[in-house]
Amino acid sequence: MTVLPAWTELVRRTLDCCADLAACTEKPGEITRTFLCAPMHDAHARLDAWAASLGLETHVDAVGNWHALRRSPNPEARNLVIGSHLDSVPNAGPYDGVLGVVLGLSLLEALGDTPLPYHLHVVGFSEEEGVRFGVPFIGSRALIGTADELLNLTDAGGVTVAQAIREYGLDVRELEGARLRDDVLGYFELHIEQGPVLEAEGRSLGAVNAIAGQARFNLTLTGKANHAGTTPMHLRRDALTGASAFVLAAEEVARNTPGLVATVGSLRPLPGASNVIPGEVQFTLDIRHARDEVRHRAQEELLAEGERIARERGLTFTHELRMEEPATPMDPSLTALLGEALSAEGHVPTPMVSGAGHDAMAVGHVWPATMLFLRSPGGLSHHPDETVLPEDVEAALRVGTQFLRMLAEREGVR
Amino acid sequence: MTVLPAWTELVRRTLDCCADLAACTEKPGEITRTFLCAPMHDAHARLDAWAASLGLETHVDAVGNWHALRRSPNPEARNLVIGSHLDSVPNAGPYDGVLGVVLGLSLLEALGDTPLPYHLHVVGFSEEEGVRFGVPFIGSRALIGTADELLNLTDAGGVTVAQAIREYGLDVRELEGARLRDDVLGYFELHIEQGPVLEAEGRSLGAVNAIAGQARFNLTLTGKANHAGTTPMHLRRDALTGASAFVLAAEEVARNTPGLVATVGSLRPLPGASNVIPGEVQFTLDIRHARDEVRHRAQEELLAEGERIARERGLTFTHELRMEEPATPMDPSLTALLGEALSAEGHVPTPMVSGAGHDAMAVGHVWPATMLFLRSPGGLSHHPDETVLPEDVEAALRVGTQFLRMLAEREGVR
Repeated sequence: MTVLPAWTELVRRTLDCCADLAACTEKPGEITRTFLCAPMHDAHARLDAWAASLGLETHVDAVGNWHALRRSPNPEARNLVIGSHLDSVPNAGPYDGVLGVVLGLSLLEALGDTPLPYHLHVVGFSEEEGVRFGVPFIGSRALIGTADELLNLTDAGGVTVAQAIREYGLDVRELEGARLRDDVLGYFELHIEQGPVLEAEGRSLGAVNAIAGQARFNLTLTGKANHAGTTPMHLRRDALTGASAFVLAAEEVARNTPGLVATVGSLRPLPGASNVIPGEVQFTLDIRHARDEVRHRAQEELLAEGERIARERGLTFTHELRMEEPATPMDPSLTALLGEALSAEGHVPTPMVSGAGHDAMAVGHVWPATMLFLRSPGGLSHHPDETVLPEDVEAALRVGTQFLRMLAEREGVR
Repeated sequence: MTVLPAWTELVRRTLDCCADLAACTEKPGEITRTFLCAPMHDAHARLDAWAASLGLETHVDAVGNWHALRRSPNPEARNLVIGSHLDSVPNAGPYDGVLGVVLGLSLLEALGDTPLPYHLHVVGFSEEEGVRFGVPFIGSRALIGTADELLNLTDAGGVTVAQAIREYGLDVRELEGARLRDDVLGYFELHIEQGPVLEAEGRSLGAVNAIAGQARFNLTLTGKANHAGTTPMHLRRDALTGASAFVLAAEEVARNTPGLVATVGSLRPLPGASNVIPGEVQFTLDIRHARDEVRHRAQEELLAEGERIARERGLTFTHELRMEEPATPMDPSLTALLGEALSAEGHVPTPMVSGAGHDAMAVGHVWPATMLFLRSPGGLSHHPDETVLPEDVEAALRVGTQFLRMLAEREGVR
């Protein structure tokens, strides 16, 4: 039996590896690593080196996902996938996605040669952020066999996904081979929270029991532009006072609906001159909840409120659904097991909802999936100052190891 | 004694002259006639022709104001100025300013050879809109001797006012001579309302008893930009919900303060992405009232409200006064006389406030001034569809003639 590294040593190595991967960037001085960019080769090489030291087989599939495989001695073993993504937003922090892949390898190192009754795949997805082609989850969708419909998407330079794959040196004809057809017992993703909840609650870690569903609307209120000096208040049809009433209504509905978040992030009054009453306002609504029926009810309430505001103020209201993603519940049994692992390590097991999308959302429709969130200091992500606390990384390694052992027990007696 | 034209004939001629002047434009297909542009020569020539037919002397002064003079037989006569402006906003309507100058000539025609105890100047100001040099009233300020401080202003092409005067063929050294040093008994301006009040009240005309004072503020609310999905409502510091509360507070204060108008015309949330909680909002406040103390009180109330909103929502509030113009009361005695003329012609004499600035604002600090507004159909101005009703033009001619006769009586017994 090999000597297992101490937790602090493994935490150091995990964080060093994230820093190491941060150097693989398209733009010197910042971290920008989009789908199939040249520096991704370098990122894979650095992961290969660590995987090789653990005696793992690695390969890169037809959409650029990086794989390391730890085989089980059990000939009838099913498969557990530990994954997250290696691409980044422009000018990113070093942990979003990357930490989950690196922690996958760290967990394998922590396990040493403990035999497991399942094969363990660590996967670094090539694309999750949707930066290059405007559509996320190209990597994880290849793994569940639904990426072929994305091959003709084009990036800002007119390059298709298929061309990008060829230019990276991969063979698009092998896309079908990237699909993981074997029996998958579960998908486990470790990820920074990218929000302020764990920090506000003083917790290191949280199991995720659902990824919120979301809808985005383009909205307009139209009244009449007029001279700010010559038009008395009672003769105005001001689209901006109407839009302001809507913004506050959205806030109120969300505050009164547990778990709902509603955001007006973009809002543009026209013509937008300081001495002209706005005749039109174009704005957006982003609304999310873990239960689609709750979100649908809130959407309907808010669209009705838009109509009511328009009626009351002599405006017209239009709404266009620009995007809708249903909620993705995590697998109850896997998430309960993760809660037990949290309890065993002395953490509060109460699960939380992810308001952002993750690879677990894409694969969660096909495989039993669960996620473990690590506290994000300041709630900060998608920013160079994004960070993670070493004690939370240690906690994630302890809980993750515990979870993999409990899963081995459960799988052993299946 | 000459035969006076019938009212309908004079209305036709007035409107024809406005249409004629609309053809003097920098941009074919629209009306754009800025300060000292070449087509202004043509506009002056057309006015000269009409003035000559009435036997009037005309000249253009050193800042390009057009003058026609009807001398009184009285050797001790004081001076009455009837004026408005000949410049326009880009893509203007045919009546803003122009109608007041043309009605000045029409009133002289209506008076025929009736002797008056005052000299009557009709003035077409060269600049009121502030389009070319960003500062309004260059023409009217030359008449009261305060334009010399504007000579070094530059337009978008880097040309100074002094250069523009020379390029137009005038002599900037004669600027002091443009000042009307003689004893001025009053300034009378006829102008379209450019607002919806007269139309809403079913009136053709309104005497103006004050030009509203105004202030414009640049405001900001700053919170914290955050992920719209991962940040629960209670942990947000959303600058846009705060700004929305301010917009509605401004509306409420204005609705509850008779005569006050308050407008947020420009509002920009940052970063302005649909899935990011706005961390900052930059917006404006335009606030106007005929009495400065009322406006000041409302401003203070709203700035305090901005602070209160910021405190309540964990934001910071900043305000910068960008512009302030005190209110200009019209001369009470002249305005009362105009009210009598309105009553004599069967109109409601109740005076109104002008929410927009006019040449009467510039000269009203020095000379007794009053204004007569003509109804603006649809409240529309600064737009190609700007119009005026022929019956309102006739009403203005009747009331204007009546006013000039009453003023002659008053001046005769001075």
